[in-house]
Amino acid sequence: MPVYNPPLRDMQFVMHEVLNVEAELKALPSHAETDADTINAVLEEGGKFAAEIVFPLNISGDAEGCQLDKATHEVKTPTGFKEAYAKYLEGGWAALSCDPEYGGQGLPFVVNQCFYEMMNSANQAWTMYPGLSHGAYECLHAHGTPEQKALYLPKLTSGEWTGTMCLTEPHCGTDLGMLRTKAEPQADGSYKITGQKIFISAGEHDFTENIVHLVLARLPDAPKGSKGISLFLVPKFKVNADGSVGERNAIYCGGLEHKMGIHGNATCQMILDGAVGTMVGEPNKGLAAMFVMMNAARLGVGNQSLGLTEVAYQNALAYAKDRIQMRSLSGTKAKDKDADPIIVHPDVRKMLLTAKAYAEGGRALAIYCALLLDKELNHPDEKVRKDSGEMLALLTPIIKAFLTDNGFEATVMCQQVFGGHGYIKEWGMEQFVRDARINMIYEGTNTVQSLDLLGRKVLGNQGATLKKFGKLVGALVEEEGVNEKMAEFINPLAVLGDQITKFTMEIGFKGMRNADEVGAAAVDYLRVAGHLVFGYFFARMAQVALRQIAAGNTDPFYVAKLQTARFYFAKLFPETATLMRTARAGSKALMDTDAALA
Amino acid sequence: MPVYNPPLRDMQFVMHEVLNVEAELKALPSHAETDADTINAVLEEGGKFAAEIVFPLNISGDAEGCQLDKATHEVKTPTGFKEAYAKYLEGGWAALSCDPEYGGQGLPFVVNQCFYEMMNSANQAWTMYPGLSHGAYECLHAHGTPEQKALYLPKLTSGEWTGTMCLTEPHCGTDLGMLRTKAEPQADGSYKITGQKIFISAGEHDFTENIVHLVLARLPDAPKGSKGISLFLVPKFKVNADGSVGERNAIYCGGLEHKMGIHGNATCQMILDGAVGTMVGEPNKGLAAMFVMMNAARLGVGNQSLGLTEVAYQNALAYAKDRIQMRSLSGTKAKDKDADPIIVHPDVRKMLLTAKAYAEGGRALAIYCALLLDKELNHPDEKVRKDSGEMLALLTPIIKAFLTDNGFEATVMCQQVFGGHGYIKEWGMEQFVRDARINMIYEGTNTVQSLDLLGRKVLGNQGATLKKFGKLVGALVEEEGVNEKMAEFINPLAVLGDQITKFTMEIGFKGMRNADEVGAAAVDYLRVAGHLVFGYFFARMAQVALRQIAAGNTDPFYVAKLQTARFYFAKLFPETATLMRTARAGSKALMDTDAALA
Repeated sequence: MPVYNPPLRDMQFVMHEVLNVEAELKALPSHAETDADTINAVLEEGGKFAAEIVFPLNISGDAEGCQLDKATHEVKTPTGFKEAYAKYLEGGWAALSCDPEYGGQGLPFVVNQCFYEMMNSANQAWTMYPGLSHGAYECLHAHGTPEQKALYLPKLTSGEWTGTMCLTEPHCGTDLGMLRTKAEPQADGSYKITGQKIFISAGEHDFTENIVHLVLARLPDAPKGSKGISLFLVPKFKVNADGSVGERNAIYCGGLEHKMGIHGNATCQMILDGAVGTMVGEPNKGLAAMFVMMNAARLGVGNQSLGLTEVAYQNALAYAKDRIQMRSLSGTKAKDKDADPIIVHPDVRKMLLTAKAYAEGGRALAIYCALLLDKELNHPDEKVRKDSGEMLALLTPIIKAFLTDNGFEATVMCQQVFGGHGYIKEWGMEQFVRDARINMIYEGTNTVQSLDLLGRKVLGNQGATLKKFGKLVGALVEEEGVNEKMAEFINPLAVLGDQITKFTMEIGFKGMRNADEVGAAAVDYLRVAGHLVFGYFFARMAQVALRQIAAGNTDPFYVAKLQTARFYFAKLFPETATLMRTARAGSKALMDTDAALA
Repeated sequence: MPVYNPPLRDMQFVMHEVLNVEAELKALPSHAETDADTINAVLEEGGKFAAEIVFPLNISGDAEGCQLDKATHEVKTPTGFKEAYAKYLEGGWAALSCDPEYGGQGLPFVVNQCFYEMMNSANQAWTMYPGLSHGAYECLHAHGTPEQKALYLPKLTSGEWTGTMCLTEPHCGTDLGMLRTKAEPQADGSYKITGQKIFISAGEHDFTENIVHLVLARLPDAPKGSKGISLFLVPKFKVNADGSVGERNAIYCGGLEHKMGIHGNATCQMILDGAVGTMVGEPNKGLAAMFVMMNAARLGVGNQSLGLTEVAYQNALAYAKDRIQMRSLSGTKAKDKDADPIIVHPDVRKMLLTAKAYAEGGRALAIYCALLLDKELNHPDEKVRKDSGEMLALLTPIIKAFLTDNGFEATVMCQQVFGGHGYIKEWGMEQFVRDARINMIYEGTNTVQSLDLLGRKVLGNQGATLKKFGKLVGALVEEEGVNEKMAEFINPLAVLGDQITKFTMEIGFKGMRNADEVGAAAVDYLRVAGHLVFGYFFARMAQVALRQIAAGNTDPFYVAKLQTARFYFAKLFPETATLMRTARAGSKALMDTDAALA
């Protein structure tokens, strides 16, 4: 059975030693009182909840899966899931970073980010139930009417009810402009909604007495395409004016998907048969409203893979120290044993360190982004809010795609460390791989993310936001450029910082003549940008570690951080050489292939 | 449900137009009569068998899995598996490339290679039953006593009995020197064998009346380590002198593993409780004898991933043409539809072409290796036999590791083309990924393969065999160096051919000072060598295609082949730039990490 130890020390390092979260929060009136001790105490408890309550349900939930009663349309979640959710509510975890106006605890998103990383390590399938609910909360909080807020937000905040997002239909996922679900206005101002949705995570379950669905649909007179989509709130049970649960609404689960992984989460086909709903936001502006939820979800998906990377790494590391097999190439290491532990082998270390570097780089980026979100929503200075929002928008597709591609690679490598045992279910490693696989697909495939990054976020504003990130890199290079000890980190970063400007301009120019050049370069581009960002954070983390060591701090944590940063720059970062080469090879080798793809 | 069309045209192209198999076989007395028409006719029938009989059992076999009756120790394979095996025997497929002396059809291995590629596309789990049996046949054929051969080879040839290889124990897989199973000599010259084996594929099943296990074990006086291992033949049912099946032997299945994939194949824990066996080969020389089987198995595992790459590609291609979603970035392509088929998107093409290039490069290499095997075993000139064997030994770890790493990447990409639907079981794509995953692990992990390649096959003889492959590359560069139309293929190949010599010497020198340098570079090195080999075969295939086009041949097959080769050199081959860089980064960043991996 796998193990999991919440990586509290590394979280604290990133928050308090690298990003100075406490000082940053002091500038935000709503979080000015949140100090490091509070954050650490909450996360320590959160780690216990993750490791002790939901982690033990991970393998059993995968094996058992969810069951649909076709007669009642009710879904039974795996044994123990429901009880764990009751404890989750009891502990107040649902309300962690929700608005105090609706009963929330009002803690900053950096705390929620770290808490959810641990929850995802412990059990991605379980965590998706409250995770999606949080997205629905965000969306209603931003776009709901006062009545909707009053009726639904307290219950979503407390976790008494959960929420979903109902977007995909059988014929459309990425291309929501094609969706067909219809909403007919009723005399009382409500809508009757009819259609079929698929791939609705947590669409039905036995955790709560009600489920609040946010559903995209078309009004009768709506324009074609994505400009004719509206958003509706459709509860499983209608809600009376006093907030009590009323009669059953005509939205129900028609089937469960049988999937590669995340078996513990119910992926539902949802049938709407004249279900009664109310509109959220403006008519035909449903996509924009839903995007609040989508952006939160994309950060959340990156966080899922961060969690899986960490837990897979911890187990592979433990196995590599324990499993003895063959001798070290450079001479026997464990003379008292029949063979050396496999951690003596360079390639085993490479697999472990790849996972570790992806976890630590991803954690730094994810916490940085959560802090940007706190600043975007709460900073008193409008310019800071705007800048934070723009930077977060730039980094969101990188979090989503880079962390999930890395997470899949890392879980596969950690599984590989186990040899044949990694392929057997009881060790738990193959489940991490299967669960991690979905993260590259849902909430916009990683190809879609790359187009969002390169087409919209970078070229869409002539690289202005990217340049702002480049300024952060430039400032660090300036600051540490003459520090010999930092040279191994700063030099490659500085080179890539220069290269990426030219690289971006090249693609921009080629793209003006032929838009397929952007599509052909986008996936490679996103990974290059991902390494620029990871390189920046590893350099900053190395800077802190070197300063601590210079100051006489003997905590081996800092030596470990330097070693991981060195590994990252030596073995992972150089991928950018090939990525820029293949991106520059252009679109012709892809598009002039009609005979090959006949 | 997935589709599968045997890629007969591409097989014929490689065999007859690129490798001139018919002419090569004419030089081998035992195959001199095997002409192209015979080969094509056999493979056409073989393709039908694969597509019509075993392919329809792939998804159902995965869903149903194998069941062990703990009382009788008998295993029930998935519905239809047993009946398909009866048809396999009926068609004479088991005997395809077996020795006519024992009832085989005596066809060359090139035929068997192509037949098995199709069988692996159709159903890897099913194909492992006869596939492993073939390995046992090879081993007994090479090392069995006349009595063992007379008693067992006719039944293994006909397929009436199947065979297994029993190597792994709970505490040892890679490091067989640690194995503990004991063999006690008996007065009648037989041995009583006691111990536990795990991960025994096809260790028990309901296809045949008997199963012939080849078991590694230690004699009482055996030296420690890998020099004290002997090989034994242990039948499930003892065999009477007249060849009839006698009493049950004390070897039985104690449990089935629950695995990530290949559910249709029974992965058995085998208990030997004083089971009676006879020795195969010399005492304490069991590993050498078993290696005949291991080498065949390694080629076979590469072939499994080749098959999965092809079938995943075919299905992703069909889906990409059929699924409409979004518009092309460079302007609407399907004006009559609500959206364009997703094959218009550059990155979708990149995923498809990656799979296609891996399939076609892998097929060329695999058929080339099968021909080497035919020459090694049957060429009248001893030097040709020796040279063929050495070249095959060099290429075997590349087939095993490069094709299986590529196959996993390709099946993951093909799954990605399906978006969310790729994650759902009914489409079959996620099964290809799960099945492909084991191929990177078993028969020696891909790390072990890389050490075999770099440490033993390359540095072990001062690069002599690699230089022979380099001569093939050099001859092609010489021949086509002035042909402008070939420049896009020849130039990168020539550059890598030069680079790899220097690269190999560098690692060799560093390795003399510190053996961990070899271990640190090996995995990267194997991929570089893989691209050298693929680059060579793509250049040769492009050469044939260009000549056909120049001669006025209008078959679009040749244009397709050129497009695939161009894609390969533009988008996949440049990976070598990063691989050489990370290999050169050396072992320090991996080994000087004790704090990080504490």
